[in-house]
Amino acid sequence: MKKIVVVGIGPGDEAYMTPAAREAIISSDVIIGYKTYIDLISHLITDKKVVDSGMKREIERCNLALDFAEEGAAVALVSSGDPGIYGMAGAMLEVKTQRDSKVEIEVIPGVTAVSAAAAVLGAPLMHDFAVISLSDLLTDWKVIKKRLQLAAEGDFVIALYNPKSKGRVTQIEEAREILLHYREKETPVGLVRNAKRAEEAAVVTTLKEMLQHPIDMLTVVIIGNSNTFVENGKIITPRGYQL
Amino acid sequence: MKKIVVVGIGPGDEAYMTPAAREAIISSDVIIGYKTYIDLISHLITDKKVVDSGMKREIERCNLALDFAEEGAAVALVSSGDPGIYGMAGAMLEVKTQRDSKVEIEVIPGVTAVSAAAAVLGAPLMHDFAVISLSDLLTDWKVIKKRLQLAAEGDFVIALYNPKSKGRVTQIEEAREILLHYREKETPVGLVRNAKRAEEAAVVTTLKEMLQHPIDMLTVVIIGNSNTFVENGKIITPRGYQL
Repeated sequence: MKKIVVVGIGPGDEAYMTPAAREAIISSDVIIGYKTYIDLISHLITDKKVVDSGMKREIERCNLALDFAEEGAAVALVSSGDPGIYGMAGAMLEVKTQRDSKVEIEVIPGVTAVSAAAAVLGAPLMHDFAVISLSDLLTDWKVIKKRLQLAAEGDFVIALYNPKSKGRVTQIEEAREILLHYREKETPVGLVRNAKRAEEAAVVTTLKEMLQHPIDMLTVVIIGNSNTFVENGKIITPRGYQL
Repeated sequence: MKKIVVVGIGPGDEAYMTPAAREAIISSDVIIGYKTYIDLISHLITDKKVVDSGMKREIERCNLALDFAEEGAAVALVSSGDPGIYGMAGAMLEVKTQRDSKVEIEVIPGVTAVSAAAAVLGAPLMHDFAVISLSDLLTDWKVIKKRLQLAAEGDFVIALYNPKSKGRVTQIEEAREILLHYREKETPVGLVRNAKRAEEAAVVTTLKEMLQHPIDMLTVVIIGNSNTFVENGKIITPRGYQL
């Protein structure tokens, strides 16, 4: 019985993929992943079995990975960014637990979307921060709203994953309303789509004006804390140093 | 005038350093960094000017980097993990702003300590999480305590950076007390020292027993949310999938 490596490929561009991730992909027999991510690494895949599948098939992919591994294959389960942050690491370990499987699971961390987005924007995350997914497919919207309120009250820098999709458009509007109860309208907000990937697009805006710009599932939204400022187009959250 | 690249080297082991970070180090004229991190990449440094300095000299290093860049050098300012998360990106941009310098600053993101630690522990970060530094050198302890309370109340997974140092030992005890007001004693806690680096050491414990294990400045502490569980020695926070 071989093992499953849950591989974080980072933002997608190979310049930001770790050698450990690259090596895991090259040395595996079977590669499983969401089609978009498989396409990002297609040049690394030769003479291997590849199973790509559509969105929302996470559990199916994990079961397939276990099936192949139990038959003796070395399997790479591919995740964008860091598989431990809204990626495939958890689902894989949950499925292994459910099936009471003895297959070994290794997680290879990657550069997560919020790190890539922050690097593009300047240095917005330099103080305590909260990461919140606005997707209510798997989490009650009341829980998410409460977290937004508490993170806003705590003056955390706030990073939002999955802010908006074609069928889910009101959450980002509600999130902004909550934030406006605690922070100034001029609070800096960064929107980064496809961070450190081809077609990267970044906007530096404010809580007041953020909804006037395009936001979708590929966008990471970073909202500054009460000390965050913009200088030369870069968002900077001071750490508290005496300069 | 050349530019400054603020380079995130990840945990330290080259298997987890991105090609972009490696290339930035190799192609620069001057390397500046905290001694411990310079040592981790010494094999990449040949015929370059190297300035290493001790802890708490962050602003001095940023001023030096600007001095060299203004004289025409390509400078790599080295940070462990991701320079945008409690790293050098913010200080560098703050110093540039203060000096009103025109030097270009690029940030190269890396695998941050919490991603590396989570990968070692299993999948503890799979739901909304808060990242909090327990160091009160630059932040009022009252602010940090309030953030701990709010993050605990919001049922965020909580990652603690800088939990304890030789001269600062009570904060982790107070943090645990705060958490115990909101979470069960048996809540899983992971302690990872030197994640994905030589001498890596990980402990899976609970809120009740966490202080019985060694914790220092090189340790990342991850405290589960109310759904987090341990299976086969791995910490798993469920995402909410129907299996």
